[in-house]
Amino acid sequence: MLAELDLDAIRAAGERIAGHVLRTPVLVREHERCTLLLKPESLQPTGSFKIRGAFSLMTTLPDDVPGVVAHSSGNHAQAVARAGRVLGIPTVVVMPRDAPETKRARSQADGAEVVLVDPDSEVRARRAEEIARERGFVPVPPFDHPLIAAGAGTAGLELAQDADRLDRFYAPISGGGLMSGCATAISTLSPDTEIVGCEPEDADDTRRSLAAGERLSVPPPRTIADGLRVRTPGALTFPVLRERVARIELVSDEEMLVAMAFALCELGLVLEPSGAASLALALREGSGRCGVLLSGGNVDPALLAQVVGRLP
Amino acid sequence: MLAELDLDAIRAAGERIAGHVLRTPVLVREHERCTLLLKPESLQPTGSFKIRGAFSLMTTLPDDVPGVVAHSSGNHAQAVARAGRVLGIPTVVVMPRDAPETKRARSQADGAEVVLVDPDSEVRARRAEEIARERGFVPVPPFDHPLIAAGAGTAGLELAQDADRLDRFYAPISGGGLMSGCATAISTLSPDTEIVGCEPEDADDTRRSLAAGERLSVPPPRTIADGLRVRTPGALTFPVLRERVARIELVSDEEMLVAMAFALCELGLVLEPSGAASLALALREGSGRCGVLLSGGNVDPALLAQVVGRLP
Repeated sequence: MLAELDLDAIRAAGERIAGHVLRTPVLVREHERCTLLLKPESLQPTGSFKIRGAFSLMTTLPDDVPGVVAHSSGNHAQAVARAGRVLGIPTVVVMPRDAPETKRARSQADGAEVVLVDPDSEVRARRAEEIARERGFVPVPPFDHPLIAAGAGTAGLELAQDADRLDRFYAPISGGGLMSGCATAISTLSPDTEIVGCEPEDADDTRRSLAAGERLSVPPPRTIADGLRVRTPGALTFPVLRERVARIELVSDEEMLVAMAFALCELGLVLEPSGAASLALALREGSGRCGVLLSGGNVDPALLAQVVGRLP
Repeated sequence: MLAELDLDAIRAAGERIAGHVLRTPVLVREHERCTLLLKPESLQPTGSFKIRGAFSLMTTLPDDVPGVVAHSSGNHAQAVARAGRVLGIPTVVVMPRDAPETKRARSQADGAEVVLVDPDSEVRARRAEEIARERGFVPVPPFDHPLIAAGAGTAGLELAQDADRLDRFYAPISGGGLMSGCATAISTLSPDTEIVGCEPEDADDTRRSLAAGERLSVPPPRTIADGLRVRTPGALTFPVLRERVARIELVSDEEMLVAMAFALCELGLVLEPSGAASLALALREGSGRCGVLLSGGNVDPALLAQVVGRLP
């Protein structure tokens, strides 16, 4: 369990990352029975919330660190590459061969060395460990680390501070770093807020694990939400989710595509499928004042064209 | 001249509209020789900066006002309709027949009565005057009013407050309400900032008027930037522009389409052509720290599809 993950740790992360990340606004929209209070992390430099965790951890490294290594479906890679460039730290990122081309190209544009492996989250974790051992680089894990979760949690902290009252909070769950951080911040500041996680239908490892009371794995997911294809909850994040998340609901690929279209038309935002998952759930079941974490916007043009082609 | 348009008037407008409009963030991106400091007014409720002017004026009306009437290519109509709904004021909006369908539908969804006329800005101005006379409604002009310009100027005030230092400021010029307000705020707070306006190639009425030293009209423009098709500078705004704008540059439809694609890919933002005009100019000539006002994001799906179809 992330013993170090509490409101103080998240506030401290917020101080370290200020100046490097955007304090994203809260977009307010009325929709049927609910008021949506949307936190568009897609507007961050590098296009996702991952920049918060990357700076949260990497600002604590000693000046003489030889380098860092990360593995990621793409957004964490871009964030670590950017933080590495800004902080002057050599960076290697291990990515799946099928990661969106934009994510790969941008990590390289920020000076990172990109290593491509098979599209399985466990394969890329092992390759990153090897590189860390071989070169003496510090691993920057995508989610299972208290400083990463605390960094991600600053988004929830800001939302709780800016949104007045929240009846519900929706965020996607992949490895659990984002949700463990945000749930810690929000449930500490606003104990009556219902914390609701969402996962793609075939990437429901956390939902199954919570039901079983232990960490379970699922087969490699095929959902279009490439940022949510993690197969097993984090060892450190899972106990936090068990304590703080009220329930987890599943969303279909189709619902994420509809939510992406809603974001384009009603919010003026480009979201990637993972970034639209929580919005999809809020559109389906939301009532009252619903905080919604829009996690990222790095989508391949072909998929974006598909969504635009369906607009009325 | 807008004698009442000064920093105090803009600050007062900011106080009236707080709670109704979003304090948009400043998105910072490095691009070639410049640091872009982008003010995405496309994220406002109703999708453009126009909501600032609408609330700035309509919050000053007496409780027993019978109604308001506005004419607009679309964004001002939506803003007035929304402010009317929020403030409980009956609203009529006069729009050109060729206004994007989304803009018309949304004004109606907010309860406004929509009157369609020929697509010429002078025709719709006359129709709005008739309705004001017939029904005793208060006109809410799209730009040529000190309270409208002061409301629009709050965007420039926020940018000057949040952006630290600005070498240049880019905003589109249609009737001149946005630029007269923003230029007043920015040049007062930051006298060394170069204020640069931009117009579409065939809607260059303000550029021609500044060169001639008097207000000139151009034929009905055909630019894709439907928000910038005004044919004559405002009587009240023009002297402000003459005093505060350093120069005006023209952008082509093609440059606006390229800037829209840049916004989708690099910023995660949907912009309409008018909203991308200032970005197009900054991408072409920007250097140093460039403040860029992105005025709106209400684009028809067909044009959005065209832009997405050109992405690499």
